[in-house]
Amino acid sequence: MIPKNVLSELEHIVGKENVLTDYADIFVYSYDATQLHKVPDVVVIVSNSNQVSRVIKIARENNINIYPRGSGTSISGGPIPAEGGIVLELGRMNKILDIDTENMIAIVEPGVVAAVLDAEVAKKGLFYPPDPGSLSVATIGGCVAEGAGGLRGLKYGTTKNYVIGLEVVLPSSEIIQTGGLSLRGSPGFDLTHLFVCSEGTLGIITKIMLKLIYPPKKIKTMLVMFDEIESAGLAVARIVENKVIPSTLELLDKVSINAIEDFNRVGLPRDIEALLLIEVDGEPEDVEKSAKIVEDVCSTTGARSIEVAKDENERKRLTQARRSLFPVLARLKPTAITEDATVPRSKVPLMVKRIHEIKEKYNLLVGSCGHVGDGNMHPIFLTDKRDKAEMEKVEKAVSEIFDYCIELGGTLTGEHGIGVVKAKFMEREFKKEGIKFFSDIKRAIDPQNIMNPNKIIMTKEIKVDYV
Amino acid sequence: MIPKNVLSELEHIVGKENVLTDYADIFVYSYDATQLHKVPDVVVIVSNSNQVSRVIKIARENNINIYPRGSGTSISGGPIPAEGGIVLELGRMNKILDIDTENMIAIVEPGVVAAVLDAEVAKKGLFYPPDPGSLSVATIGGCVAEGAGGLRGLKYGTTKNYVIGLEVVLPSSEIIQTGGLSLRGSPGFDLTHLFVCSEGTLGIITKIMLKLIYPPKKIKTMLVMFDEIESAGLAVARIVENKVIPSTLELLDKVSINAIEDFNRVGLPRDIEALLLIEVDGEPEDVEKSAKIVEDVCSTTGARSIEVAKDENERKRLTQARRSLFPVLARLKPTAITEDATVPRSKVPLMVKRIHEIKEKYNLLVGSCGHVGDGNMHPIFLTDKRDKAEMEKVEKAVSEIFDYCIELGGTLTGEHGIGVVKAKFMEREFKKEGIKFFSDIKRAIDPQNIMNPNKIIMTKEIKVDYV
Repeated sequence: MIPKNVLSELEHIVGKENVLTDYADIFVYSYDATQLHKVPDVVVIVSNSNQVSRVIKIARENNINIYPRGSGTSISGGPIPAEGGIVLELGRMNKILDIDTENMIAIVEPGVVAAVLDAEVAKKGLFYPPDPGSLSVATIGGCVAEGAGGLRGLKYGTTKNYVIGLEVVLPSSEIIQTGGLSLRGSPGFDLTHLFVCSEGTLGIITKIMLKLIYPPKKIKTMLVMFDEIESAGLAVARIVENKVIPSTLELLDKVSINAIEDFNRVGLPRDIEALLLIEVDGEPEDVEKSAKIVEDVCSTTGARSIEVAKDENERKRLTQARRSLFPVLARLKPTAITEDATVPRSKVPLMVKRIHEIKEKYNLLVGSCGHVGDGNMHPIFLTDKRDKAEMEKVEKAVSEIFDYCIELGGTLTGEHGIGVVKAKFMEREFKKEGIKFFSDIKRAIDPQNIMNPNKIIMTKEIKVDYV
Repeated sequence: MIPKNVLSELEHIVGKENVLTDYADIFVYSYDATQLHKVPDVVVIVSNSNQVSRVIKIARENNINIYPRGSGTSISGGPIPAEGGIVLELGRMNKILDIDTENMIAIVEPGVVAAVLDAEVAKKGLFYPPDPGSLSVATIGGCVAEGAGGLRGLKYGTTKNYVIGLEVVLPSSEIIQTGGLSLRGSPGFDLTHLFVCSEGTLGIITKIMLKLIYPPKKIKTMLVMFDEIESAGLAVARIVENKVIPSTLELLDKVSINAIEDFNRVGLPRDIEALLLIEVDGEPEDVEKSAKIVEDVCSTTGARSIEVAKDENERKRLTQARRSLFPVLARLKPTAITEDATVPRSKVPLMVKRIHEIKEKYNLLVGSCGHVGDGNMHPIFLTDKRDKAEMEKVEKAVSEIFDYCIELGGTLTGEHGIGVVKAKFMEREFKKEGIKFFSDIKRAIDPQNIMNPNKIIMTKEIKVDYV
């Protein structure tokens, strides 16, 4: 419970209409795409960094937790106000402050929706490559805080590769600038990337400077069908060995393919075991050469057939099919738990095999897809949160996947963050010393542990229920 | 002075022959390329991370400062043992541990010389783009600690864009792993990039994982002569606006051109005001197209003439001329002070103009060059450290350059680090709040302030003399 005088102070800063406490109003701020939830004590809607600073000051003085929130598309429980306190709604800070075509830089507020930025940047003849699945809804602030990736990671990198500067309100309520408009970065240890992927645990990002590039002149999209998932894995390795770096290199398994067909009828063969969605882009001549290499490689590694998009409409249809995957899988069962195990590219076939074995062992329904070009696998467990017995099996399966992932030199997440759902696995990846180091930094910056507490690093285990 | 029992403990760890205290032995560890110097108390030559950890433990217990050292090519005074203590010589940790062609990753020890890595990587058909001027001598550890750049920054980025994981020995003597073999990075705030550019102030880097790429199939090199430096600045902007991102886009001024001619006789016209060294690379057809655009742009922006390298030998001759610049300028006068002001690309012409004005105002000899494609200017002050009056003028000039640089949205360094020489300017860029934030992190990680103390962030001003 937030004391009345604190609520008054908050109202004084942002206006009465921007401090929400009615259950019906605040319930929608209680969950994210994990369906995990906890109703906050209060939601404060802010409009600028000065307000953020003043809200933080009050929170600190009263030892109240703060949870920054964008569009709530997290699938790691990042924005869930798990231990009560203030949800800081940043969606209204949604101005594109500048698109500097000369220096190829965009400056935006955190609440700008990714797709809106993409469109505005495109109007100026530029390109912002990171393309998380949720880009039509997700905010850039959330993308930066969680290190969002997407389909273009192999060739273009992910959000972290495009952030060159930030304005951040610290837990001390001080406002700092990191990085800047120079592509060379700024001196000293990298404060910008200390906040990228910090999931709101170190401060509130209130301004973001992003590097932009020129868009590719041509894109060619191919769908390659395989009777065996191992052959698809082999094709991935061979394509890169042949010096083609596709902008997209996506694997979908049979469950995923059939889910897409059930709801979207793209015309994919339902009996294949795996499908690669491959895009090559760049200068027109290079694209043709690369596409030829991809086709040759896929043929020699056992592809059943290869379909090439004939025009832009067909290209969009094929990529939209992939983009629809999470929603369509989510329709198969009441609960979809999306994992994000990431391994070195050469280990993808091993990881694919092990995911299959684990799924068989526990008799679970799993749809697998992945940005396999950069080793990012998404096994999606389709289950029912009310079925306690199956949920326990899912938990064991997830744990085994991460153990193997780390054994292969991989990591717990390629783009979804740690949030509440994976904090318990962090020690497996970073060992005791690493966790202590994370904690030392967190404590130095946020000594009261009020900024999105117990996300990434647990000081205690927190119990969060499904909505 | 290090107590005798501490020296014995150090000898116990690394062997008697690897603990140097004789003046003649340790003198060479007293300076770097700035010519600033301070003789350390002792030099400890380490061979592995376990030894590093044990040495740090002893240093901590006895409150002795530690200064990591690679090849000493720093031009910011990074490795200078300014306040006495242990120089930790890492040059013997020079093994390339793995070049993983499947995942396109190299794993190296910090003492590997950049050019050695380049050559080994090339043998496997891969490419490590960062190319600092000192690459034939500089170690990768130093490049990572200082954020080394080079001529290829505009298209390929700098060292920081290639580091994907580290092993670090902390001031606590604990060893942690950051990042890893996955190109997607690892979860939580970015520990890897906390150490990149940390200049040895947060821990000792003992292992480095680097992303590799495929080399370009073709490179075309052009020299473009201008009668006015402003025209060259305009050409830089126009080339990028015409969607050509050269791999190299270097500006040299008249002083630089003549210094090269004095010592190397490349055949450059001595009467031109500016020269652009431009390289475009990639697929052969694209290279030709891009080169054509560059030539057209330069003609319309007032180039006097354009010379295209006819073959690989000529290409090497032209780029070597640029690479020889620092040494040849250093021959003009006893002391060369290399600055590293970096601004957004669109501000390069303004910065060039101001550098010229400041040089005139103080009547100084300055040779200017720069990686202008990414806004990194190098005004090189040619002076004599024994001439106190002129050295004071240089100091004022440098200070004015940085004021203007920050006014333009630029930064104190694009690739040389802060070290001792620029620590006093840091507050201008980061303001009080930023400096406090740096200090909070430094204190959390190195509470005794023994790791390369007073570099980047001064807790007190330190006086260092020229050798």
